[in-house]
Amino acid sequence: MPRPQPVPLDSVNGLSRAEFATLLGEVFERAAWVAEAVAPLPPFAAVTALHEAMLAAVVAAPDESVTRFLNHHPDLAGPSTRKHPLTAHSAREQAGAGLDRLSPQEATLVAEWNARYRARFGFPFIICALRHTKDAIFAEFERRVANEAAEERRAALAEITRITALRLVTRVSGPGMPKVRGELTTHLLDVAQGRPAAGVPIELYTVSADGSVDLVAAAISDENGRTPVPLMVGRPIPNGTYELRFSLGAYVSGQTDSAFLQMVPVRFTTAEPEGHYHIPLLFTPWSYTTYRGS
Amino acid sequence: MPRPQPVPLDSVNGLSRAEFATLLGEVFERAAWVAEAVAPLPPFAAVTALHEAMLAAVVAAPDESVTRFLNHHPDLAGPSTRKHPLTAHSAREQAGAGLDRLSPQEATLVAEWNARYRARFGFPFIICALRHTKDAIFAEFERRVANEAAEERRAALAEITRITALRLVTRVSGPGMPKVRGELTTHLLDVAQGRPAAGVPIELYTVSADGSVDLVAAAISDENGRTPVPLMVGRPIPNGTYELRFSLGAYVSGQTDSAFLQMVPVRFTTAEPEGHYHIPLLFTPWSYTTYRGS
Amino acid sequence: MPRPQPVPLDSVNGLSRAEFATLLGEVFERAAWVAEAVAPLPPFAAVTALHEAMLAAVVAAPDESVTRFLNHHPDLAGPSTRKHPLTAHSAREQAGAGLDRLSPQEATLVAEWNARYRARFGFPFIICALRHTKDAIFAEFERRVANEAAEERRAALAEITRITALRLVTRVSGPGMPKVRGELTTHLLDVAQGRPAAGVPIELYTVSADGSVDLVAAAISDENGRTPVPLMVGRPIPNGTYELRFSLGAYVSGQTDSAFLQMVPVRFTTAEPEGHYHIPLLFTPWSYTTYRGS
Amino acid sequence: MPRPQPVPLDSVNGLSRAEFATLLGEVFERAAWVAEAVAPLPPFAAVTALHEAMLAAVVAAPDESVTRFLNHHPDLAGPSTRKHPLTAHSAREQAGAGLDRLSPQEATLVAEWNARYRARFGFPFIICALRHTKDAIFAEFERRVANEAAEERRAALAEITRITALRLVTRVSGPGMPKVRGELTTHLLDVAQGRPAAGVPIELYTVSADGSVDLVAAAISDENGRTPVPLMVGRPIPNGTYELRFSLGAYVSGQTDSAFLQMVPVRFTTAEPEGHYHIPLLFTPWSYTTYRGS
Repeated sequence: MPRPQPVPLDSVNGLSRAEFATLLGEVFERAAWVAEAVAPLPPFAAVTALHEAMLAAVVAAPDESVTRFLNHHPDLAGPSTRKHPLTAHSAREQAGAGLDRLSPQEATLVAEWNARYRARFGFPFIICALRHTKDAIFAEFERRVANEAAEERRAALAEITRITALRLVTRVSGPGMPKVRGELTTHLLDVAQGRPAAGVPIELYTVSADGSVDLVAAAISDENGRTPVPLMVGRPIPNGTYELRFSLGAYVSGQTDSAFLQMVPVRFTTAEPEGHYHIPLLFTPWSYTTYRGS
Repeated sequence: MPRPQPVPLDSVNGLSRAEFATLLGEVFERAAWVAEAVAPLPPFAAVTALHEAMLAAVVAAPDESVTRFLNHHPDLAGPSTRKHPLTAHSAREQAGAGLDRLSPQEATLVAEWNARYRARFGFPFIICALRHTKDAIFAEFERRVANEAAEERRAALAEITRITALRLVTRVSGPGMPKVRGELTTHLLDVAQGRPAAGVPIELYTVSADGSVDLVAAAISDENGRTPVPLMVGRPIPNGTYELRFSLGAYVSGQTDSAFLQMVPVRFTTAEPEGHYHIPLLFTPWSYTTYRGS
Repeated sequence: MPRPQPVPLDSVNGLSRAEFATLLGEVFERAAWVAEAVAPLPPFAAVTALHEAMLAAVVAAPDESVTRFLNHHPDLAGPSTRKHPLTAHSAREQAGAGLDRLSPQEATLVAEWNARYRARFGFPFIICALRHTKDAIFAEFERRVANEAAEERRAALAEITRITALRLVTRVSGPGMPKVRGELTTHLLDVAQGRPAAGVPIELYTVSADGSVDLVAAAISDENGRTPVPLMVGRPIPNGTYELRFSLGAYVSGQTDSAFLQMVPVRFTTAEPEGHYHIPLLFTPWSYTTYRGS
Repeated sequence: MPRPQPVPLDSVNGLSRAEFATLLGEVFERAAWVAEAVAPLPPFAAVTALHEAMLAAVVAAPDESVTRFLNHHPDLAGPSTRKHPLTAHSAREQAGAGLDRLSPQEATLVAEWNARYRARFGFPFIICALRHTKDAIFAEFERRVANEAAEERRAALAEITRITALRLVTRVSGPGMPKVRGELTTHLLDVAQGRPAAGVPIELYTVSADGSVDLVAAAISDENGRTPVPLMVGRPIPNGTYELRFSLGAYVSGQTDSAFLQMVPVRFTTAEPEGHYHIPLLFTPWSYTTYRGS
């Protein structure tokens, strides 16, 4: 099913209250009342202003409404104990982080964590799954479960800000878009020949704490030494550890007898989901340089 | 059992023929006649001259003696079909390459190869196991089994030259030692601070074709950014693929907020067992350069 | 006096023969007959096609006309012996290479060369001055004066192709423009901080054989580590030796105590006037890397 | 006149007081009384202990003796106003920094500074000339003339500590030598070929504030990519700005058509006269990396 195009902000500003509430009713998880509260407020000059108005409606709600709202979020990866099925949004977001493919041991661990977290704070662990790899989600879980109650409530609302921004930009377009997208790019330069390296296979993997890897993207460098499209684009770069693999072997064997470099792995850890990670490789058959570029 | 010290060449030159034959009888596999043939020839001015004399004795022998000599070498990793137990030398050499720890699938494959090779050439596949990783031995097997008979006989004798040089230098010392040892070293330089990086854990692994790794050496960088002893030393560097892993995380977190580089893998393939592989890492929290140095 | 805008090729195709000859009469030095010969031929589908037609008219002319045409080109930098003043085009082109600012010794040398060249070939030394520094012109003079006559005639016509392409693109615009422009850019990356370096003064100099330098361009790096406009753009990059100077001192002293790098000179020699020379600097307070990028 | 060998500390410990005073009488400028004061104190366990004892004798002297001692030091480069000729030591030290080759303008400037300094502090400007280039001496002059009196008296004594350490090590050798020597080395690695670059001409210059340069050392890289001896060794590395020039042109033209890099200048400023400055160059025909190594 193709996803509908975002509606221009100008048009959103001209919607009836009912149409407005329908368009934005799912932005906040199982909380159509947020869109309804904001429906009288247009026109908005910027998409960020619309987003902030919706967040303000949450903050202005009575504490018990907020708690109920928090409680309408699903547990992480815990289907067996769920009263409601996941919303389509949540299902897609959790799948993106691999939370729908946990091993039995991981599932047990997550279930224990969910119980521990919920007992401590009175609502489920909420995290913007699109901004973290599975390993990073686990690390955040461990870190945040030790928070004080007020601190963790703020942390949950901060995650909801990120989650709802990502949902909003699929529904509304226009000036003042919230920044929700990062980019991961590379560039292959053969500095022995002084020119871009074409035809080199490049793979991008996520790396788990146990060293296992999952393929994220694959491409062949073009005549400019770049990939035809960025290795990640149009979405946040999930916080996590990655490995780029540059299979130089065939390229280098066309230039020289050296077989010293066959596959160059470049491993790095990201922490800016909306940032641009540009990771070039300057190489010869016997050396290379890599760095976070711009 | 401590291995005996090599005997100085001067003393070797003064041995009786019987003593000489005893000292060097095991240098050529199950071929005490080689040492006996050379026993009348001392004095030798260099250990290489002694080695060349022994090799000349083999070459001078009738073809059928040489074939018999070739046949006295053991199959690779093939205990079940052996008439004789491995000599202590051969056992140590094959274990060094991991040939004593084959998986059942590998063992089956090697058994098939051995049969195919022996059927084609009339003698077992001979390779200087100390100069190759297990994967490199398999690659050589596949390459050499396609050789012409005369070419392969030369290849086998070239391997015997390497095997016997390594055995000889454990028995005789003195001027003109054959070059049988390589070295693998590293150097860690923090180019953001302009000084060597101390306290960084370094590991060296061999990497198999399937991506699995085996730890070869581990060390912590000292105040000069070097390891207290070379990562490999005093023996050939087996042809193969290696990965150095520099665990920069703790070091870098002492200098900066960046967690971009946690563990830097450097993967390379060697082809000069008696060479010096110096693989430095010049790094900052956001970049690094590596190369084959000198 | 502002230079007139180029005329779109479509409009050129619609000109009368007389208008056409007027528009393009100065493209070939003192040879209005070339434009006249081509005037009946429009329409042209590409600017390169128009250029090729004009070149073909020269090649098709009788040898003695071509020789006369070659002779209508001015001597290099030789005002005192000139019968005619330089055309505005030639004056601008020679000044661009510094040929209007020769020292007395250089002027004497050039006069001797001009005489020697003209005696040998029967026409003056012709070179596309916009594609060479003064030093490169002198080097070409010395190289070409040793050519055979036919070879040198071809060399002169090749230079005229370059000269006329540069004149043509100031008069006509449209599809299929001849490639006459190069670019020289840089990029400053602080790899100790993992970000572009802003606020660094950058100067570009030409370097003569005697080591003396002439400032070509100066800029301050912006927040992307780039210069607001390319250091050279919209014209050929004259073949020659250049030095980029990056004054890192103030930038680095804001980050660290180190005063190791104050001004980083990067010296390089170019040979592709229509190419893109991208010369980045990746630096820390204690190290740097530079390369021809893309 | 060959300089005498240093006397072993053991022998110094056995000298008569008179012999001791003769051996060390010139270590402190025109102050034989310092050596005499220390003459009863041997044996010393370390050369540094002997040096510290001599410094302590100065510090213990009455203020007016110290002032008289300071006044026995020569003005910088000011022969015309001198009552006494320079001692051989001072002449050699000042010449090392180029203070015997001042331009008339510099000489005038120094004379003015000397007058201003002496008027302010009551003694001449004292600096360990072997630890600074001429430019660095001028910079220090400007910086120190603004000091408070007590601060500057300490600064002068700190310089005397350096001056006398350098004189002492030419007279006495043994355990616990004061560190008075630095080293400046390089290493040329061709990372396109994966091996040291032999046969490359290397020059080391000092660079003045006005950009003029003075040759300090020249060498050709050997088969290890190093210079046969360090570019500076056996003395302090004078604080100052240097330029290393690597003339890669001929080397690179033997490997490739590229003429991009002809001479690579590497400019750096030093601040540790007793340090080791190792400045390698890793290069290809199109790129290079340099850094302060170790």
